Amino acid sequence: MKALEEAIVEWGEGIGTDIVKVDRFLNHRIDTALVTEMGQEIAGHFRDDAPSVILTVEASGIALAVTAAQALGMLPVVFAKKHAASTLRGEMYAETIRSFTRDITYDMRCASYCIMPHDRVLIVDDFLADGEATRGMLSLVRQAGASCVGVAVAIEKAFQKGGRTLRDKGIRVLSLAAIREIRDGKILFQEG
Amino acid sequence: MKALEEAIVEWGEGIGTDIVKVDRFLNHRIDTALVTEMGQEIAGHFRDDAPSVILTVEASGIALAVTAAQALGMLPVVFAKKHAASTLRGEMYAETIRSFTRDITYDMRCASYCIMPHDRVLIVDDFLADGEATRGMLSLVRQAGASCVGVAVAIEKAFQKGGRTLRDKGIRVLSLAAIREIRDGKILFQEG
Repeated sequence: MKALEEAIVEWGEGIGTDIVKVDRFLNHRIDTALVTEMGQEIAGHFRDDAPSVILTVEASGIALAVTAAQALGMLPVVFAKKHAASTLRGEMYAETIRSFTRDITYDMRCASYCIMPHDRVLIVDDFLADGEATRGMLSLVRQAGASCVGVAVAIEKAFQKGGRTLRDKGIRVLSLAAIREIRDGKILFQEG
Repeated sequence: MKALEEAIVEWGEGIGTDIVKVDRFLNHRIDTALVTEMGQEIAGHFRDDAPSVILTVEASGIALAVTAAQALGMLPVVFAKKHAASTLRGEMYAETIRSFTRDITYDMRCASYCIMPHDRVLIVDDFLADGEATRGMLSLVRQAGASCVGVAVAIEKAFQKGGRTLRDKGIRVLSLAAIREIRDGKILFQEG
């Protein structure tokens, strides 16, 4: 998606060979117009798959999940939790996740009422890198007995294994921008 | 706001005398249509104050902040962070917060580029209870040298001190639903 690639070039920051900072427009300060347009783009790709619910994980995926949900006719959004809250109780689905950016392990959780066996789940997130968060969400979908219609992310780090692993499993993956390489602070995109 | 009060009655859960669970439509599973309408309601109340940016805190405030930002003409949204990320660096504003629901202390942080001295900040959050999170966000606004046009929350626990403290300071507070009391699992709203 051209507008997103332009924002990454203008506002993003490549650090080392594998970190992309998009705090200025995506996951700390949000460019609301851009994220709304990104949600519409996701909706255009998945409308025919008739998703019934959007699943993301707190916190950076929520804005994009909501705008995609709006564009898909006001679908419900579920955001899986990373942190235990005193109000989160009852039957849960859970999966242990290793976070690449934070270098920690956490339990991704979702109450069982959030996803029903008949649900057609569209997974939405800000980043797809090694695919850990997506693996966790796919596990929640599986535990619910539901099906996944696909995975839509803002930014895929195509030099990491997440996207390839999902596609090899036959899962449809849409990345609005796919980064091929970060070199000398320069962010290079995949063609096509 | 009638639609929100109805959702609280139908889907919410009162626990003890002070906990309101709204996980089923607001802060775990999101009713996108309702949250979009809530954003429009907030916009209607604050449009004349010409806010230039919306400030919230991860994670449960993000959906409402985004829909309010859309309704206010695609304002940028800043969500303050509760957790350190390897990609969050540079000059920061920070405030130590005591969380009521989690019974923990955390540092609320925001990069200095997020809020400029000329900004007119509208603070948006899901809950206003003892006012700790709001106090933190007001501190970030102050550290940035910006001004706050008001505070909009989905649900005010009017039996806790947060709302009163803010109003006593002359800060405009909009709560879309104000809960007077939780008694025997029943959630009772304030009149007007």
